[in-house]
Order: sequence, then structure tokens, then C-alpha cells
Amino acid sequence: MKQTELFTKTTKENPKDEKSINAQLLMRAGFIDKLGAGIYSYLPLGLMVIENIKNIVREEMNKIGGQEILMPSLHPKENWEITGRWGVEEMYKIKDENLGLGWTHEEIITPLVKKYASTFPKYIYQIQSKFRNEPRAKSGILRGREFLMKDLYSFHKSEEDLNDYYEKVKEAYFKIYERCGIKEKTFLALASGGEFSSSFSHEFQTITDAGEDNIYTCKDCGCSFNEEVFESRCDCGSTQFDKRKSIEVGNIFKLGDKYSKLFKMDNIVMGCYGIGITRVMGAIVEVFNDDKGIIWPKEVSPFYIHLIELDTDASEIYDNLQREGVKVLYDDRQKSAGEKLSDCDLIGIPIRIILSKKTIEKNCVEIKRRGSDKIELIEINKLIEFIKNEL
Amino acid sequence: MKQTELFTKTTKENPKDEKSINAQLLMRAGFIDKLGAGIYSYLPLGLMVIENIKNIVREEMNKIGGQEILMPSLHPKENWEITGRWGVEEMYKIKDENLGLGWTHEEIITPLVKKYASTFPKYIYQIQSKFRNEPRAKSGILRGREFLMKDLYSFHKSEEDLNDYYEKVKEAYFKIYERCGIKEKTFLALASGGEFSSSFSHEFQTITDAGEDNIYTCKDCGCSFNEEVFESRCDCGSTQFDKRKSIEVGNIFKLGDKYSKLFKMDNIVMGCYGIGITRVMGAIVEVFNDDKGIIWPKEVSPFYIHLIELDTDASEIYDNLQREGVKVLYDDRQKSAGEKLSDCDLIGIPIRIILSKKTIEKNCVEIKRRGSDKIELIEINKLIEFIKNEL
Repeated sequence: MKQTELFTKTTKENPKDEKSINAQLLMRAGFIDKLGAGIYSYLPLGLMVIENIKNIVREEMNKIGGQEILMPSLHPKENWEITGRWGVEEMYKIKDENLGLGWTHEEIITPLVKKYASTFPKYIYQIQSKFRNEPRAKSGILRGREFLMKDLYSFHKSEEDLNDYYEKVKEAYFKIYERCGIKEKTFLALASGGEFSSSFSHEFQTITDAGEDNIYTCKDCGCSFNEEVFESRCDCGSTQFDKRKSIEVGNIFKLGDKYSKLFKMDNIVMGCYGIGITRVMGAIVEVFNDDKGIIWPKEVSPFYIHLIELDTDASEIYDNLQREGVKVLYDDRQKSAGEKLSDCDLIGIPIRIILSKKTIEKNCVEIKRRGSDKIELIEINKLIEFIKNEL
Repeated sequence: MKQTELFTKTTKENPKDEKSINAQLLMRAGFIDKLGAGIYSYLPLGLMVIENIKNIVREEMNKIGGQEILMPSLHPKENWEITGRWGVEEMYKIKDENLGLGWTHEEIITPLVKKYASTFPKYIYQIQSKFRNEPRAKSGILRGREFLMKDLYSFHKSEEDLNDYYEKVKEAYFKIYERCGIKEKTFLALASGGEFSSSFSHEFQTITDAGEDNIYTCKDCGCSFNEEVFESRCDCGSTQFDKRKSIEVGNIFKLGDKYSKLFKMDNIVMGCYGIGITRVMGAIVEVFNDDKGIIWPKEVSPFYIHLIELDTDASEIYDNLQREGVKVLYDDRQKSAGEKLSDCDLIGIPIRIILSKKTIEKNCVEIKRRGSDKIELIEINKLIEFIKNEL
């Protein structure tokens, strides 16, 4: 894509009413725009990141047998009265109607699967905008009042089968975080079953200073616990823990027969498994940034290459890269080198390629990776080969 | 996909509370489920159709320079007070909050483009769930209270430029309807500018008995008019018209400077262009069906081939077709031939392939197109070649 065609632009100033790094950088770089507290528009670059994360999640969900559907956001009161959750504060209600906005979908998926499924297990998921009445919407896209979420629900004939699938989902989640670049910072933490379940649940917590949560990791056995369930002695006997700030980027629950019973679905136990798509995007930015901007991991980046021309014309290189199917953002703007390079750092695409009069003299382009200071010169006619090896 | 893995099932009985053909057939065939009046879940087959239509729309929008974004559904009251539309009955309001749900996005896109765009024209679109307080939600997915819509907004420096782009959008829309199979039944009808505009607008109206609208087509010159603007004499002088029932599957408006002025965007004129994705899906079903079920046009069908085994095992053919990248639904269920064939007709995939003991004796499969009675026998080892010629 040519940068002159992009309708957004970068700004130097941090937005006044945003304290979180993710919102500051994403807004300055033109990935998102703020409409209200916890409410954001996803601009072209931002939507590309979203689509990349959605595709990763979709692929990993399909690999463990997930079938994708799309449930509504408008929920009838009746469904929520059956579970006694119509009155919870999370739910936005529609004025003068017996309708609320979905912040989770047990009340919808359970009767749906009851109606259609004749054999089990079944694994059904969706990727959808959720709405949550959120008084503390001040962490950028980490905690929105409207946000994108993948929610998977599983239905089983036995606890054993649920337990097996629960382990499969754990693996799929780690695969997702690996592809999103945050696996090394992400820990599986034991958590309470909360209102959902009498047994324990698990959270996937990504270590970062921006986190609103704390996790405690046992220095001996490596087990992690969230604040709710932390007791100062680990099962292994150790009393030594690392306490670190973290963001919950996913959670998995064994619901048992709580919802299936309420909806009169006999002898079925359920699990539910959530990943906030927009929250993962925010967590990636919190983990991968420096004082110049964002540093996108390869697979979620809107483009793989940022091609910059300085006082020359790089359109031939752009066309060649496009022809090879490489995702390139091409800075064809009439701007100073300083502006172009600082925009490039702010936007954070993995590989920067510069074509300038100086590099042309050497029949080369200059290559630099975002987050590294090392500069390489590559012969122009070897560029495609170089890039293909990198992909 | 193997049909045993699909979590939905077909039903013979029409849903009691649905009179529209689109809802009856889509629910019976397991494409959608009804949650409340005008509120539907899209099940795996239904979501595949949605994704196909979205991809067609996205490709045609990108071809005319559209940039995709995703705006929120939660809209602050302030934005809508600027245009004086906070009080309109279409809008659902959130209880105890100064928030409404988006049923159109002029109030959001105009300040957004004002903030970011420095050169013009700009063409920005999104594909998103919209919400509309709809008292007469009784036409299935033709008129939902929650529905998927593509809305494109264009911003121009001059009326002339707007007029040129408006014509381009017309062409793109016809291309979309062509790819969705409904172009021959779809007419461009002159309509009033309504609340949006002082000049005329255009609607794309698809002829079908299920239509809630009427269009009048001049028998002499072929010009069409909707009910609002119809006067019993055409511009060409003729007074002879065909009056036909139709569904509005798209609309395009020249907004002029109405919204740009209100948001203090100087010397900019706008256009807005909508296509209801779910409504197009419903219109396709209304146009293409018979007493046995749906007849999907090729490009929107969830699968291209419905492979049915009768008292034998067609898994080798399934694997071969999958390997060639052909989209196949494989009926591997233990059901009677009668049930399988009637489900196949109901679901409506373009090509049916049967492998049975009888066809195996001849080393053949039986091929039949949905909507035709003609049956062909094709040698099994020539099947892939046959299908590739069809694609």
C-alpha cells in the first residue's frame, strides 16, 4: 500500500486523555481513534492488525475442531432471567426494551446447541463485538466498553472428555500467543472459578508494567497464581514467589453442568474459553515498544516491510515486492527524511528498507530491523531473494 | 467438510412464527437460528454465506479505492446532537447512559475524516453489525433489528468529483449483485433524497414477491422509480409502467455538504453508500428457491459441491476434491437416501455428486445441478477434470 493513499496520519503529541502506552502509541501512529471512554475506531492499519490476530485465532480454533458461528449482540431478557444474570452490572440494557447487550454468550449458546446438536462433543466459537458496562475504562484497548472477543464453548458427555479438551485449548492458546509474539511473557495462572464454576479456572497472564493484575510465580516449581487464589505457600512447599504485574489475555473455565442444567440439557458439561482480540493487540503494544514507537511481531504486523524512498523513486522495488506477494507499506510521501524515519519507527513494521541517492550509488538498499540498530546494505537485485529468506 | 461434523441439522417443519420464505428456508436448512424478533444467529453454513458476500463486497469496494476501517457501535450522544438526530426512532439508546447504538455512521465518520484526512477525495468503508429499532421485524433477515451492513462514505472537494465517484459506486454495486447472482433481477430506481439530501438518491431494488417496496419501470425507456418519487408520467413522456414488488438491496446518496458543514469541515461534499450484507443474503434466498429448498448461486454458496454417499464410502473422492481446493460438503451420515437427497435439495449447494453401489458398477458418479432435473454420469477418474472445468 502506498502511504499517500492511507487516509490516516501520525501525530507527535500524546493524546491528552490517555495514560496507557497502548492507546498513546496506537493513536499517535494512526491505528486507532478514540470516540469515547473505552470506545475506539480501528483505522486501516489497526484493522489489519485485528484481522491478522483474528486469522491466527481462527486457524488455531479450527485445528481443535471449533466451528465458527456468529451470535447476536442483542439479547432477550428471558434468556438472562433463566440464569439469574439479567441484573449484573456488566450488562448494558436497551432503554424501553427487554433487551441487553451481550458481554458473554452462555445464555445464547446453551439453548442453541441444545436445539441443534444430537451428538457430542461439540466445540462452537465466534469472534464478535462485545459490550461491557465498564466504569474503569482507562487502559486504552486493554479494557474497552466495546471490544472484539473470541469466545469458544464446548459441550461434553463427561467430565473426562471436558478435561481432555480443556488441555487441548490450553495448548491452542499458547500457540496463539506464540504466533502473536507474546508467548515468552505469557503465563498460565490458576484462578478461582468465580461466578462461573465451583472448580478452579485458568488465566493467561502477560507480564507487563501496564497490567492491572498481579501474578505470583513460584520460584521453585514455576506454578503461577492470580491474586484471588494466591496463598503464600505453593503446593510444592515453596514460599518464594515472584510477584509481577500482568494483563489477562485469555481465560478458560470448566463450567460443569451449571448452564446446561439451567437450560435443561441433560447430562452435558460445558467449558468456555475467551480471548480478547483487541486486548491481545493492546498487550502486544505494551510488551513491544520503545521510546520511538511500536515494534510489531511479524505475524500480527499490518505490513512486513516499510519501504522508504528518500529523494528518489522506489516504485520499481515496490512493484516487485508486491508482485512477490510481500506485504509492503511504501512511503511515497514528499516529506523530509527525518519525518519519514520517525513515522516509520512509530508505526513499527518489522523491516525498514530505504532507497536513497546514496544507496543507489552503491546499487543497494539499506535494511534495518525495527528494534535493532544494525544497518545492512543489500544489492537491489538480491533484495527479493533476501526478503524471501526472511519470510 | 464432513456433514457428521456439522453441529446443525435440518428440520422438515417450517418455524411457526416466520412467514417469510428466506427465514423459513434458512432456518429449516440450518443456516440461521432465531433468537428474537429480527434477531438471528448465523450458524456455520450461514456464516460461510455471509463471509462470501462480505468478500465480494470488500473486493469491489477496494477496487474503487475504498479503505476499510471498523467504527464502534456505541455512539456518544454529543455526536448525534450536532446533527439533531439523537431523537430519531431508529436508534436504540442505552439505559442510564448517554450512548446510542449505531444504525448509520455519518455522525462518527465525518469528525473522524476531518481529524485525519489532509488530501481529498477519500473513500472509507466498514462492514459491521448495525442496530435499528424496528417495529416491523417480520421479514426474516430482510429487515432485522441487528444486521450486517457495509457502509461506504466518500469525501470530495467538488460536486463534480462526487458525481464521478457516485457513478463508479453504481458500477461497483452492479458488479456485486452480478457476483451474488441477482443482477438480472436488480434495478436502479430513482428515490428521494429523504432526510439525507435535498437531491435525489438511488436504490437498488431486487424484484421478488417478498418485497415490501414497489418499483415502477417505464415500459418505453426502462427507467425505474420508487414509490416516493413516482409520478405517472416518465421523463421520456411515456405513461406506461410495470409495477413490481421489490427488496431494497442497496442505496446510494449524495449528502452534499449537510454533514461536513455541521462538523465544520469546510468545502467538502460527501456521499454515502450502503449494502445490507444479511439483507442481500435474504434477497438471494427469496429469488433462488423452489418447493424443495434454496438454490445458491455459485459464488455465495457455502460449498460448491455436495458429495453424497449412498450405502458406500465416498471418502476417497472427498479427499481428492479437498486436495484440489474444491469446497465440498460431504454427506457421510448414516441416513436413508431419501433423507440425504431432500436435505441436499433444502441446503441448495450448486452441484450434487452421488456415489452409490449402482454408480460404482459403472465406475461413475452421478452429477446433478441444483435447480435442474438433468442427471449425468461421469467416470470417477474424470471427475476432477470435470469439476475444474466447471469452476
